[in-house]
Amino acid sequence: MTLPKRQMKLGAFLQSVGHHLAAWRHPDVNPEDATSLEHLKNLARIAEQGKFDAIFFADGLGWPQVPPQLLAKGAPAYYWEPLTVLSALAQVTNNIGLISTISTSYLPPFHLARLFASLDHISNGRAGWNLVTSGTDFEAKNFNLDTQTGHQERYLRAREYVDVVKGLWDSLDDDAYLFDQDSGDFFDPEKIHYLNHKGKYFSVAGPLQSARPVQGYPVIVQAGSSEDGRHLAAETAEIVFTAQQSLEGAQAFYQDIKQRAQAFGRTPDSIKVMPGIMPIVGKTLAEAQEKFEQLQSLIDPTIGIGLLSGFLGNIDLSKYSLDDPVPDFPVTEGWQSRQQLLIDLARQENLTIRQLYKRVAGARGHKIVVGTAAQIADELEHWFNHSAADGFNILAPTFPQGLSGFVEQVIPELQARGLFREEYEGNTLREHLGLARPRSHYHDTV
Amino acid sequence: MTLPKRQMKLGAFLQSVGHHLAAWRHPDVNPEDATSLEHLKNLARIAEQGKFDAIFFADGLGWPQVPPQLLAKGAPAYYWEPLTVLSALAQVTNNIGLISTISTSYLPPFHLARLFASLDHISNGRAGWNLVTSGTDFEAKNFNLDTQTGHQERYLRAREYVDVVKGLWDSLDDDAYLFDQDSGDFFDPEKIHYLNHKGKYFSVAGPLQSARPVQGYPVIVQAGSSEDGRHLAAETAEIVFTAQQSLEGAQAFYQDIKQRAQAFGRTPDSIKVMPGIMPIVGKTLAEAQEKFEQLQSLIDPTIGIGLLSGFLGNIDLSKYSLDDPVPDFPVTEGWQSRQQLLIDLARQENLTIRQLYKRVAGARGHKIVVGTAAQIADELEHWFNHSAADGFNILAPTFPQGLSGFVEQVIPELQARGLFREEYEGNTLREHLGLARPRSHYHDTV
Repeated sequence: MTLPKRQMKLGAFLQSVGHHLAAWRHPDVNPEDATSLEHLKNLARIAEQGKFDAIFFADGLGWPQVPPQLLAKGAPAYYWEPLTVLSALAQVTNNIGLISTISTSYLPPFHLARLFASLDHISNGRAGWNLVTSGTDFEAKNFNLDTQTGHQERYLRAREYVDVVKGLWDSLDDDAYLFDQDSGDFFDPEKIHYLNHKGKYFSVAGPLQSARPVQGYPVIVQAGSSEDGRHLAAETAEIVFTAQQSLEGAQAFYQDIKQRAQAFGRTPDSIKVMPGIMPIVGKTLAEAQEKFEQLQSLIDPTIGIGLLSGFLGNIDLSKYSLDDPVPDFPVTEGWQSRQQLLIDLARQENLTIRQLYKRVAGARGHKIVVGTAAQIADELEHWFNHSAADGFNILAPTFPQGLSGFVEQVIPELQARGLFREEYEGNTLREHLGLARPRSHYHDTV
Repeated sequence: MTLPKRQMKLGAFLQSVGHHLAAWRHPDVNPEDATSLEHLKNLARIAEQGKFDAIFFADGLGWPQVPPQLLAKGAPAYYWEPLTVLSALAQVTNNIGLISTISTSYLPPFHLARLFASLDHISNGRAGWNLVTSGTDFEAKNFNLDTQTGHQERYLRAREYVDVVKGLWDSLDDDAYLFDQDSGDFFDPEKIHYLNHKGKYFSVAGPLQSARPVQGYPVIVQAGSSEDGRHLAAETAEIVFTAQQSLEGAQAFYQDIKQRAQAFGRTPDSIKVMPGIMPIVGKTLAEAQEKFEQLQSLIDPTIGIGLLSGFLGNIDLSKYSLDDPVPDFPVTEGWQSRQQLLIDLARQENLTIRQLYKRVAGARGHKIVVGTAAQIADELEHWFNHSAADGFNILAPTFPQGLSGFVEQVIPELQARGLFREEYEGNTLREHLGLARPRSHYHDTV
């Protein structure tokens, strides 16, 4: 008897017409797809053909408050509200997981619990929630505030938020239903639970009037790699997305997350670490390199700098020349881990501002792997087999080509090596990921 | 040349396994449908076969904080989050409008604008928003509050809320897109608008990063019939749902709403008044009456009283005998117009508490019409032709039977009389209703 071989998990990170900042300008891309919901249905179907564990949407609550001339240069990244879109995509797919980022910062936890409970039922158990805290002042300005809350405070609030949301998901026991037409008892009253949560940030009575999610709880995902973010992820997340440039950095992060999770009494297997990877696939290495260079050449410097400035906490870069070395910046209250990653990268490689924005514009700090299908599979396998990753979140540079190319060329290579599934193992996202269905907190000890 | 005959508009008000409180206990009904999303897909398809203008969901944010023994007696009315459900239903229908209640009380307007903009695009222009303010303390307790806000204050806030939401929907002009791959201009910067709203209740910078809705704005619906509610509806609503028991009451309401709308410079046609009607259809009057009596006999007195108490502002009715006449109660800060309707009804007909809860349990204050298809069509035609209604919101007593029966029997009768469409006139909900697509407020004078 042999143990089944450990296989990698793959997420298809969807965004507009591609993750590369200049994707919409690529001659093979139809820029109108950036505003099309049919386009997203097509991508979801392609990802499901590729047996991806899940599709994934990032999210943001508004647009940077920069001059319209700058906004006008880019295809918007977070064009639609993701939960309505995933509810629609659930109807045109059957197996693939459906993960969305939803920020804890400006949506009351009662609404979030209800939205995800519905999505999990609409999709028959395929929902995942990427829990983030909003990290910009421009988002705060859409919600009655002038500035965002401080980094640590945001994470303390998020920690309590998760408890409230899980508590609401447990409002009705799985077996709460009697449906007894004769007696008139629809529910068993013993199996309806009032939460009566009163904490530092939230006061929520409950119950939520929806069935417990098919998966018990939708899969909890996190992407914060700061100290606060890692702490929260280790305690509560089941998937951790991360941006890692080097094998060593990824290994250190992987080990750190698994150790922190163990300190919370969790098994290493119960938390999947999935770095983001942008694959640029060619029939030859030269063809792949040419593809990448073509995309890089299409980056408008104005938005390259705009993007870099945003990642660095909306710092004003206009007083520097593009060919100056990247200066020292303080880490702000925004996306701290991403800021540190970029500053470290600039230092290690002595990058100029232009060189750094070109690096960022490609994959926003995620690792770019350029090569043949076999070379890309080699790289993924190497990380996977050397304690750097349980799987990968795949950022296609262009859509649909970058995703369909990965599905047609790299996935078969991974399958041939026994590293990736040929068929879905089950029906729910938890089953794809090999994660247990959580018990209700009212029955922890049963 | 003859003018086309004026036709009525019809909404299919969907809820659980029926609007009658005891629907789930009816032997023809499958109580498990109350928790099934496939059931809702089936209802949406039936309503579309019947050429209804729209399906409609009411909503509530939680469960009354009553003993679980009482909650256990009923099928929950607002089980799923309606916008995710409508996004899914948009995929299994092609023409029918998709209207949901969403309360302004606990969801920031930026989220609401984004959710409905997405739904309107997901459905190719079929979204409608029933704007309400939450009217109970138990909902407030799910959102960090102990008690709800006062009635008038809620409506003042709602008025500003509508302005913010419409302003955000106008963020991108309809022709804002250049898609110019060569120049790198995705948008025309002149056509991206920052809202920069600063009002008494809201401060929202914008822009919303979504396309202007297909319909310009989703259709705005309201159901408040109090003084505050009528004022808000007359200024902003395009459909007004209302509960009316008598032709005279409905005529007075109809005239009042149209006059108030005219005072705001609107045409009478731009606001459709649609009373709720619960049709109990039989092959004979006797069969219909028997159907109704069967449902009435299944009402558990515990939840009959619970429902009545809720409608009267959570007043304690336990100290009265069921056969006492309905006592005098003050109108509370809750659903004022519904409270007044019930008190008036009890006075006019000298009802006991038991008689009143039986009236309420049927259709929650909406008019019940019992008869053959022809008799029901007669009643609708009479109201429609005597300035009491532009159409009706149909509350089927049971699902799917009550809806499919109406579609198979009453709709053909209305069609034969030329009172209702044989085919959809257009693609969007606005087109079904004969409502113009609103201009962006940035181009009011163009």
